[in-house]
Amino acid sequence: MTTPLSQLGEFGLIDRLRRRFDTPPEGIVGIGDDAAVFPGPDGRGEVVTTDMFVEGIHYDFAYVPLHLLGWKVVSATLSDVAAMRAQPKFFFLSMALSNRFTVEGVDAVYDGIAAACQYYDTHLLGGDTTTIRSGSVFHGVGIGEELPARITYRKGARPGDLICVSGNLGAAFLGLHVLEREKEVLRDTHGAAPHLDKYRYLLERYLRPVARFDIVRTLNEETVTTTAMIDISDGLSSDLLHILHQSQVGCDIYEDRLPIDPLTFKTALEFNLSPATCVLHGGEDYELLFTVPAEQESRVNRIPDISVIGRIVADPAHRIFHTTGGGKAALTAQGWDSFLKKQAASDTE
Amino acid sequence: MTTPLSQLGEFGLIDRLRRRFDTPPEGIVGIGDDAAVFPGPDGRGEVVTTDMFVEGIHYDFAYVPLHLLGWKVVSATLSDVAAMRAQPKFFFLSMALSNRFTVEGVDAVYDGIAAACQYYDTHLLGGDTTTIRSGSVFHGVGIGEELPARITYRKGARPGDLICVSGNLGAAFLGLHVLEREKEVLRDTHGAAPHLDKYRYLLERYLRPVARFDIVRTLNEETVTTTAMIDISDGLSSDLLHILHQSQVGCDIYEDRLPIDPLTFKTALEFNLSPATCVLHGGEDYELLFTVPAEQESRVNRIPDISVIGRIVADPAHRIFHTTGGGKAALTAQGWDSFLKKQAASDTE
Repeated sequence: MTTPLSQLGEFGLIDRLRRRFDTPPEGIVGIGDDAAVFPGPDGRGEVVTTDMFVEGIHYDFAYVPLHLLGWKVVSATLSDVAAMRAQPKFFFLSMALSNRFTVEGVDAVYDGIAAACQYYDTHLLGGDTTTIRSGSVFHGVGIGEELPARITYRKGARPGDLICVSGNLGAAFLGLHVLEREKEVLRDTHGAAPHLDKYRYLLERYLRPVARFDIVRTLNEETVTTTAMIDISDGLSSDLLHILHQSQVGCDIYEDRLPIDPLTFKTALEFNLSPATCVLHGGEDYELLFTVPAEQESRVNRIPDISVIGRIVADPAHRIFHTTGGGKAALTAQGWDSFLKKQAASDTE
Repeated sequence: MTTPLSQLGEFGLIDRLRRRFDTPPEGIVGIGDDAAVFPGPDGRGEVVTTDMFVEGIHYDFAYVPLHLLGWKVVSATLSDVAAMRAQPKFFFLSMALSNRFTVEGVDAVYDGIAAACQYYDTHLLGGDTTTIRSGSVFHGVGIGEELPARITYRKGARPGDLICVSGNLGAAFLGLHVLEREKEVLRDTHGAAPHLDKYRYLLERYLRPVARFDIVRTLNEETVTTTAMIDISDGLSSDLLHILHQSQVGCDIYEDRLPIDPLTFKTALEFNLSPATCVLHGGEDYELLFTVPAEQESRVNRIPDISVIGRIVADPAHRIFHTTGGGKAALTAQGWDSFLKKQAASDTE
């Protein structure tokens, strides 16, 4: 009997694989969160995450410069360390490159890797280098650590908790849209210089994302308790559903509280897209989504770059998106597969 | 200016990349050995290694069954943990699969992964699952630990040390030769059953290699000191040269002491290959190659599955292979590139 992978879908496959493995021993957290956690030095938890990036699926060299790909591989991988509320320490880069690559090209990728590792105060400790018949694949391993009491999983959200998000959302997704459109233009006009200056912020968000360890540090300084946390790589809706599913709770979230940059809003309309849809389903913003006990609302409100977008409720079936017009919609992750065709793949963790 | 990657070669590229990175802080070992090492729990060293496996480069589904690929990915990755004389603890598997894969196929790969993890008493803690346009790529991360005093690097070999190797060599390489030949036969005859029974041991060595943690345990039990260690993935000659290079020493090794299975010997002749060449340059045996202080010779001799094949000398330029007939040849790794075309890629670590 043969069943095509497409019939199961990516998350179906991950669920199937997860069930095949035993629960790890006490004190060790395996498959099912942004990263695995096991005992590290000095009573700290060691946090390990892996991320695979495939040419033609996760990046397109028609518009992604090599050094920014290097930067993004580090940032996207380490974002899963931030999503555990941990500090980054080490990075491993593996790559499979076809003969099409030049030495200078590899140097450029490494420029981006080195710049990102320096930015995150993280040491590159190794990796593997190999050939591939066509295209390229990069694989990052991020290792971090933190006190076990601070490490935050997806499963701890409780009824009444505030749902918080850092930064703003939908920008990376529209940056990708702009680049895809320019790629078509470039193809038709054989190299005309694209006029992208006015979209600079969106392109930056897509091409040069930043893992939000600054938010993690601020949460530590302000002694904010986080009951659940995830980074937004697939889209707010999809990633919030992971928290709800694993915490066995529901939510109310409000359109008028969603953080969106004015340029994201304007560009969404230019592409005939609903800005709220871009915020809900656009991926790759790498912002942090987390829940905080209601009594800490004033502490959270002191932090400038955090928005409270809703609240956790007890009923797992209650997953409501309240629109600005007073309407209600069920929160779904369905938008994702068809919406972000370039991202037909995602984290197991 | 553009320079093709082929001009630099794989080891040239790795050397180039290595120079680009700062030395990690005290107590941390990065690029340049079988694995990276940093502080773990209870004063132990944490050992981390990564390995990438690319379809068409490292494996061919024409003759590699899916469950054995899963087994091999775990074994080859963890072999680098054994090569640090450490114990395995955790494994992470990432995979990029094209639509050609079926759910049952992924299950089969996982059967092999699970069997190997169980065999090595290692927990699978996570990974990443994604799509790729064609072919497949697997990536393993192996994590182990050991007391810092036991962890053995490539750089510690000293003049007078005995050069030791576990098991026997060249078998996996000839197993690959047999499979490559059968693939041609199968192609010509449209599915005639291959008669491979008499090569079973060689096929097993190629398709189902075992990381030699049993040797590590025996060395611990017999309290044998190891001054340098590596696993033989590229071939005895190439991997011994890594030890010599990093320890800045030379060697004498002796043809008549090289461990070779009678079937390897016989099959080499059948393929018109020199058995010694297969032992020196055949890769993927995943045996351990290590050096031991001369005064521990009697301890080493008590261990049945270890052969002493030569001795370390002070002069780094003295790298002599003594043939059975009394001749001398310089030890080189040159055989490797042209010899093992299927393995045009290897470890960075």
